[in-house]
Amino acid sequence: MNNNISSSNDMTNPMDPEEFRRQGHMMIDFIADYYKNIEKYPVLSQVEPGYLKKRLPKSAPYYPESIETIMSDVKDHIVPGITHWQSPNYYAYFPSSGSIAGFLGEMLATGFNVVGFNWMSSPAATELESIVMDWLGDMLRLPKSFLFSGNGGGVLQGTTCEAILCTLVAARDRTLNKIGKENIGKLSVYCSDQTHCAFKKAAQIAGINMNNFRIIPTTLSSAFSMSPEVLRKTIVADMEDGLVPIFLLATIGTTSTTAVDPLGPLCNVAKDYGMWVHVDAAYAGSICICPEFRHFIDGVEGANSFSFNAHKWFFTTLDCCCLWVKDPSALTKSLTTDPEYLKNKATESKQVVDYKDWQLALSRRFRSLKLWMVLRSYGVEKLRGFLRSHVKMAKMFEANVVSDDRFEIVVPRYFANVCFRISPKAITTKSVLSEINGTTARRNSGAEKALTINEINTKLMDSINGSGRIYLTHSVVDGIYLIRFAVGASLTEECHVATAWKVVKEHADAILSRYTTNEFGLGQ
Amino acid sequence: MNNNISSSNDMTNPMDPEEFRRQGHMMIDFIADYYKNIEKYPVLSQVEPGYLKKRLPKSAPYYPESIETIMSDVKDHIVPGITHWQSPNYYAYFPSSGSIAGFLGEMLATGFNVVGFNWMSSPAATELESIVMDWLGDMLRLPKSFLFSGNGGGVLQGTTCEAILCTLVAARDRTLNKIGKENIGKLSVYCSDQTHCAFKKAAQIAGINMNNFRIIPTTLSSAFSMSPEVLRKTIVADMEDGLVPIFLLATIGTTSTTAVDPLGPLCNVAKDYGMWVHVDAAYAGSICICPEFRHFIDGVEGANSFSFNAHKWFFTTLDCCCLWVKDPSALTKSLTTDPEYLKNKATESKQVVDYKDWQLALSRRFRSLKLWMVLRSYGVEKLRGFLRSHVKMAKMFEANVVSDDRFEIVVPRYFANVCFRISPKAITTKSVLSEINGTTARRNSGAEKALTINEINTKLMDSINGSGRIYLTHSVVDGIYLIRFAVGASLTEECHVATAWKVVKEHADAILSRYTTNEFGLGQ
Repeated sequence: MNNNISSSNDMTNPMDPEEFRRQGHMMIDFIADYYKNIEKYPVLSQVEPGYLKKRLPKSAPYYPESIETIMSDVKDHIVPGITHWQSPNYYAYFPSSGSIAGFLGEMLATGFNVVGFNWMSSPAATELESIVMDWLGDMLRLPKSFLFSGNGGGVLQGTTCEAILCTLVAARDRTLNKIGKENIGKLSVYCSDQTHCAFKKAAQIAGINMNNFRIIPTTLSSAFSMSPEVLRKTIVADMEDGLVPIFLLATIGTTSTTAVDPLGPLCNVAKDYGMWVHVDAAYAGSICICPEFRHFIDGVEGANSFSFNAHKWFFTTLDCCCLWVKDPSALTKSLTTDPEYLKNKATESKQVVDYKDWQLALSRRFRSLKLWMVLRSYGVEKLRGFLRSHVKMAKMFEANVVSDDRFEIVVPRYFANVCFRISPKAITTKSVLSEINGTTARRNSGAEKALTINEINTKLMDSINGSGRIYLTHSVVDGIYLIRFAVGASLTEECHVATAWKVVKEHADAILSRYTTNEFGLGQ
Repeated sequence: MNNNISSSNDMTNPMDPEEFRRQGHMMIDFIADYYKNIEKYPVLSQVEPGYLKKRLPKSAPYYPESIETIMSDVKDHIVPGITHWQSPNYYAYFPSSGSIAGFLGEMLATGFNVVGFNWMSSPAATELESIVMDWLGDMLRLPKSFLFSGNGGGVLQGTTCEAILCTLVAARDRTLNKIGKENIGKLSVYCSDQTHCAFKKAAQIAGINMNNFRIIPTTLSSAFSMSPEVLRKTIVADMEDGLVPIFLLATIGTTSTTAVDPLGPLCNVAKDYGMWVHVDAAYAGSICICPEFRHFIDGVEGANSFSFNAHKWFFTTLDCCCLWVKDPSALTKSLTTDPEYLKNKATESKQVVDYKDWQLALSRRFRSLKLWMVLRSYGVEKLRGFLRSHVKMAKMFEANVVSDDRFEIVVPRYFANVCFRISPKAITTKSVLSEINGTTARRNSGAEKALTINEINTKLMDSINGSGRIYLTHSVVDGIYLIRFAVGASLTEECHVATAWKVVKEHADAILSRYTTNEFGLGQ
């Protein structure tokens, strides 16, 4: 790997502008070609654990290697280990939304490479962020109280995990400052069994006693939505036990099924007990810029904070989580640092925002550039258009599922994610069945082991993903193994979704013919 | 700002490869030209708070705007608000170290835009990170116990703040699992008065009782190094008071003066009480790849974890903090999440690392690409050469300071940061003086108010920074206001440092002549 060794005496500046230009153009062409050819790769990487160690040297090179050598290794050794989130055939998890504007904004931020911890360290970084967060808050029709123009304010975090931890710490300290820090063990927090695992981790990090971490159960019959009544009962019982409820996490668009918690009623309950409500709209927040979807966040006016990931479904590349809070001082009371080496007149004037005090870390990248470039390059109308096109494609796929008796939709589709599975009906018609964990299994008298419907669907998904043609992921809710089809990769177009359905059907045909033998008349 | 409105019906894909190529090349040229012309801008942005709001529209555009329009706004409105951390005349805080290789790695990571939370989500992202962390650990001659090859392991975090919080939570839970979670209020943690403010914030976030946050005082006479003896006494006294010491943060290269804590003796103390020791070498870790500097981290073998920021002084662009731990299971016990929607066979096989369980957040960027490209593009020898050249330039500046009687070096220079000030001698020779807070002031009988030596140095720094020619920042240690001259911006060459010294002298001449009038013979 030490071809093209430069002279070790060559101390060309590592940021030489002309060399930067040469290598930069080369990289742009590499990535443009990657997007052009992305469908040639299996979507899900097919490598085995440890593949890369076998291919790379045991230590860093002593002498420089040329960019040509390195890029050749990227092609040969890195690309095979990539799961292609930017592929139009990627429907797994949630999208990791790319765009030209987002990419360019990231380049510009990396090019300036400022460390915008406070206003002083690069005023444009702070001011653009505040402006863009107000723009975006307006687009979402967030109540004015969440915007700087209404004495709230927005901040860009890396991820929702960070947004949740910051707001939880603010809520924790707000209460502890009243009841005394020694009572940290009495604090209780609330979510549903569909809430993202980030919340549990945040509570763990913030020192919440995990015995007081309350998970409200949800059911298929209520589309996995959190019940305000059960929440209230749980809170009342906890208070009777001497606990102090401080925080509710409500979700708009849960990870498994994009379920929607009823914000208005939940906020009313939380208000009665003086709790902080954070709304995690990581996935579904984006589409609330479309008037016909805005109702999903009705009731947000009762919450204390709201966040969504622009890197998920808003074309802004990882990482970019948008967090708004009504009371920024609650955040800054917990998160402010004021060491001598950062003191400056602008901060002392109290006329500026120092975003270091709105987040976990001190250093921060100039993330608002990419969000600003996305908003300007596409504009409100086109952004709505992109998102609606994803919903339309999800509806196409949903219609396909509905039209095929062997499949079923597991939960209602609200956005661009379809939760489906091979229906128990597809294997029950003439089979002998057994009930296992609320699901249906076929007692197979033949060579194949009897499989539950969950096992059949697991096999379907593994088979599809193993083909590399499309990539899907799963979840299990209320005992039901479901397959998720999340449209949102920027390159995905209707033709891809049509193909995806064909792929699903082909693999279902094979699975069903294997595990429901012809004696039952179900193989095709 | 709505020139060049595209047709609103034009739904070109937001990642169209050819449009990506066109706009990407444009951005590369923009940034190359920016670096070429960077010396034309004032290093420290000279805008006033609120400047940008006056220049940008009140809301996001409804229709798309062209990249040409946007880039023209970047030039006109964003660049004036940038403090140019990449300027060769930037000597403030610590460097934010850029390079072509780092930039290209960031581009590639943004281009792939994978969300590498676990191995499965993109095997190359996880495996390259593990490999590169072992490479880099070898370069630093970290004990094998910190490397994967020795059952420890390395992980890339965003910032040192995150690294500290992760390790603190691991240490906290390790103890609480033994003594019971209800005892969180008894835990005590230790650092010096020179430790980065990130530690206090991390302790606050992790729910440590801040009454038990112990700050060991340091003094100029011991070059602001933490005393193992005082540490031990403090720990013993705390234990007598019923506290449980869990964590020591030791620093190699503190923020104010790049002071060095004695790792060996400190780890010995901590060991006696079963405490976790984290070594924060955010700034100075980089240069320990040079054999002649390696001794600064002697004793690291007694620590539990070690981190440094590759984005600070290792050419890897923000953000990239390298953290190694001896016992990864201590991290993962606190930080693991295991929701159904992330379950996969690779994880179940236990043959892979899932880095989501080594960090605060779930999502993570493919940061190892940029670090890998930096290591390969420059190689060990050239990287050492770059860092040594910065130390050499700092020595040049130091020699200038020493050669001028009006100035003094405040603390010994170990690395590439010089702490200096106008000496009290410069204003005492013929002045009437008063002692204020251990510093020296001149009782001025003329029109100017009497200034302390600290005020004189404040005026010097503000005057220099206001010129825009170079940018310096300050600290205050042991009551002494000092000016920091941190060499490390990648574009800085010896000619820049020579000019910087001229700038310092010119401004000092003006200040000294104003505040020590000619009647005392000190103006020049």
